Amino acid sequence: MVTDLLRNIKLTLQYDGSDYHGWQVQDNAVTIQSVVEAAIEKITGQKSCAVGCGRTDSGVHALGYICNFRSDTKIPAEKIPYALNANLPGDIVCIKAEDAKEDFHAKSSAVKKRYTYFINNSPFPDIFSHSWHVRYPLDLSAMQEAAKAFLGEHDFLGFASSGFSVKTTVRTIYSLDVTKENNLIIIDITGNGFLYNMVRIIAGTLVYAGSGRLAASDMPEIIASRDRSRAGITAPADGLFLSEVYYEE
Amino acid sequence: MVTDLLRNIKLTLQYDGSDYHGWQVQDNAVTIQSVVEAAIEKITGQKSCAVGCGRTDSGVHALGYICNFRSDTKIPAEKIPYALNANLPGDIVCIKAEDAKEDFHAKSSAVKKRYTYFINNSPFPDIFSHSWHVRYPLDLSAMQEAAKAFLGEHDFLGFASSGFSVKTTVRTIYSLDVTKENNLIIIDITGNGFLYNMVRIIAGTLVYAGSGRLAASDMPEIIASRDRSRAGITAPADGLFLSEVYYEE
Repeated sequence: MVTDLLRNIKLTLQYDGSDYHGWQVQDNAVTIQSVVEAAIEKITGQKSCAVGCGRTDSGVHALGYICNFRSDTKIPAEKIPYALNANLPGDIVCIKAEDAKEDFHAKSSAVKKRYTYFINNSPFPDIFSHSWHVRYPLDLSAMQEAAKAFLGEHDFLGFASSGFSVKTTVRTIYSLDVTKENNLIIIDITGNGFLYNMVRIIAGTLVYAGSGRLAASDMPEIIASRDRSRAGITAPADGLFLSEVYYEE
Repeated sequence: MVTDLLRNIKLTLQYDGSDYHGWQVQDNAVTIQSVVEAAIEKITGQKSCAVGCGRTDSGVHALGYICNFRSDTKIPAEKIPYALNANLPGDIVCIKAEDAKEDFHAKSSAVKKRYTYFINNSPFPDIFSHSWHVRYPLDLSAMQEAAKAFLGEHDFLGFASSGFSVKTTVRTIYSLDVTKENNLIIIDITGNGFLYNMVRIIAGTLVYAGSGRLAASDMPEIIASRDRSRAGITAPADGLFLSEVYYEE
């Protein structure tokens, strides 16, 4: 089989990660990747590897996850989402398929990612949303003030859980917005990349700033320390959504 | 036991009705009422009957369901939600408890109810919301035009499923708003009461108006016919939320 005859198909997925062990195929665990690859095989009749834009952790959700796979299927791109959705479970949906350039790679072609973290800041659980339930009142303006320290290029070694392997722990944060809608505090962060658990640790640290356990003015020093123990807790997976992945045009 | 020594406690509940056979206790079926009464017994040590503001159907959800129960518990009203929530499953939450007047009755004291119906009008399922997925495009302004005919007092016999028993099928609709947010069409309806499946049949009929299968100008005649077969289909339970119940002050 001559690989340059194969189409390179880019998919946009949404998923509720509650019942999955993250994106990446693992032995003895149901992952998004394994379920998506099974659906691709059903519609194309061929085994394909779905290359993901990154690992998402167990229990993390996606509004715009990107993957790509190679296939010589004749199904037109605009019909692929319908075909896949007929073979996907109710907690995963394909909302777009496109023929991508030959060298497009969901992970290595990505230049920016946007994540959104939701905090239900009220006395009672919100049974209709995926969010972290923080019962004690948080000071929104303190969280917004603390967020400013994360902007720009930093070594985020102190904001990574152990167990990763990367060339560098330097990342650039382009925006970090903290807003509130009713009881829901929304943390929206865009960067050129994120270390393992980095968004969840930033969310946990902003919650510490909102509760007064850490001061906004301490943030630059905490980041500069590169010491995981200085930052806040790792916020739960359930509040985290991968919202968007950006590629060079 | 002298009943006038008992407190009359009003509860506001939210629930995801997906896994329940509606509100009302039934043999051999899990209902919201049975689960709430079990939680009340856990915290008060007494069996109490939770009087609901109405039956909600199997699979219907609530943002503001009201019930009341009588008890001589000493738990202060403001602490009751926390005590109940510790004994309720993750798809039911109590967000408020108040001591009500002696004669307060969640059903017969209610003067108005508000329901909200959600339609996902896009090619793809929305895995994060409870809604009716209508894939073909709906004409919002046709739906808004059709909605006007329902306002005011009408005999809604043609908008009720069989199997009910009521003194009169005349009801008054105070407001019926159809709006759109991104792909979500939101039908918001307030009335002095609703017949069995009435909101879902109105939603189904408005979708017929939005798809051109019925004309907005036909609505007055369809209502006046009192003929169930003239109206649209009964929209699925999953899109329906009981949003608010109103009582005389």
